[in-house]
Amino acid sequence: MHGDTMAEDNAVYVGKKRPMDYVTAIITQFNDGSDAVVLKARGKAISTAVDTAEIVRHRFMQDVEIDDIITSTEQLENKEGGTSNVSSIEITLNRSS
Amino acid sequence: MHGDTMAEDNAVYVGKKRPMDYVTAIITQFNDGSDAVVLKARGKAISTAVDTAEIVRHRFMQDVEIDDIITSTEQLENKEGGTSNVSSIEITLNRSS
Repeated sequence: MHGDTMAEDNAVYVGKKRPMDYVTAIITQFNDGSDAVVLKARGKAISTAVDTAEIVRHRFMQDVEIDDIITSTEQLENKEGGTSNVSSIEITLNRSS
Repeated sequence: MHGDTMAEDNAVYVGKKRPMDYVTAIITQFNDGSDAVVLKARGKAISTAVDTAEIVRHRFMQDVEIDDIITSTEQLENKEGGTSNVSSIEITLNRSS
């Protein structure tokens, strides 16, 4: 689910909160010394993940860039016991400094 | 706004309809001979664009792959005469055959 060189604690899971809540989490991770942070989101939260990445690099950290964007399809169990497909995204942010 | 080698008529603008409506448009473009189709979306429609790309390549056209995903921030005029920022995405689908 994640790259070889990426520790799991560098992941930020984007859900139903507002983008600024995740922006804060990302800035904190970079300021704690991370070279890369991966935003992960599913379904409707994908738009929020893109908003979050754009806000970080344009408004707060000009030395951060989007290194990679990967999309995939995950199968989730639904209430009826069957499975439904949901799209997911992983946005890798790198700090160039 | 688009790549050098991409004609504007290869773009599919994803809005508020359901993913399947855009899936149909993309399949039609590939079947008409296009080697590449670019999905473009803004704001909440970004999630729909990712859903659309995932459905095309997993369910309908296995020889189509995501070649590139670019995000950016666009400034739109709002009703009050000011500007507001909106995220956008461009997903380039390539047919390998």
